[in-house]
Amino acid sequence: MMERVPILKLGDILIVSIQIDLDDQSVLTLQEDLAETVVSRGARGVIIDITAVEIVDSFIGRMLSTIAAMTRMLDAETVVVGMRPAVAITLVELGLSLGGVRTALNLEKGVVMLEHARSAEG
Amino acid sequence: MMERVPILKLGDILIVSIQIDLDDQSVLTLQEDLAETVVSRGARGVIIDITAVEIVDSFIGRMLSTIAAMTRMLDAETVVVGMRPAVAITLVELGLSLGGVRTALNLEKGVVMLEHARSAEG
Repeated sequence: MMERVPILKLGDILIVSIQIDLDDQSVLTLQEDLAETVVSRGARGVIIDITAVEIVDSFIGRMLSTIAAMTRMLDAETVVVGMRPAVAITLVELGLSLGGVRTALNLEKGVVMLEHARSAEG
Repeated sequence: MMERVPILKLGDILIVSIQIDLDDQSVLTLQEDLAETVVSRGARGVIIDITAVEIVDSFIGRMLSTIAAMTRMLDAETVVVGMRPAVAITLVELGLSLGGVRTALNLEKGVVMLEHARSAEG
């Protein structure tokens, strides 16, 4: 059923919910789709929901960092939401601090964070 | 990685993005999770995004109808968004008109639809 991770659009925020095990190709496709959509929509924020992610590895950690760096170059901000406590512990243990990636507890708090970032900027 | 379909919460709207092939058990789990979350959050609307669904069968069609009927009993409204043209054609060919299920082109239009439904009611 699944080919690409869908990108939901809500105003100038894009929402991505990671639910499947991603391989190299699907990560590349997601990154390209996100970059294109940020530009075509003039999106100011990307929210990546990882509620469904129970096990994280350096592959996922790197993807989150790459997406954050990429969207920043396109003048948008990335917020990762829904991180489980066990995932946070694993990331620290792996030495992945997700530098440059902002996090919020859930989607709502992520939206608020992006709105604050915008108003602080404007 | 995947155990349950995550339910995103945004104000009094719940958002579910279907990305994986669902089996009987995961459909039941999703329906239960949704019913519980509608009640615990007092949610007024459920948006089911099926952008990633490329092939639909009577199983998926039935799930959508069941969720819509269930949420209606809990005083909430369901809107299905992101239906591909080919999926619409298949549903008609299967004789599944998704009676009682409202649809909108995308997430934003679904949110607007739910807001209108609420203000018309109030």
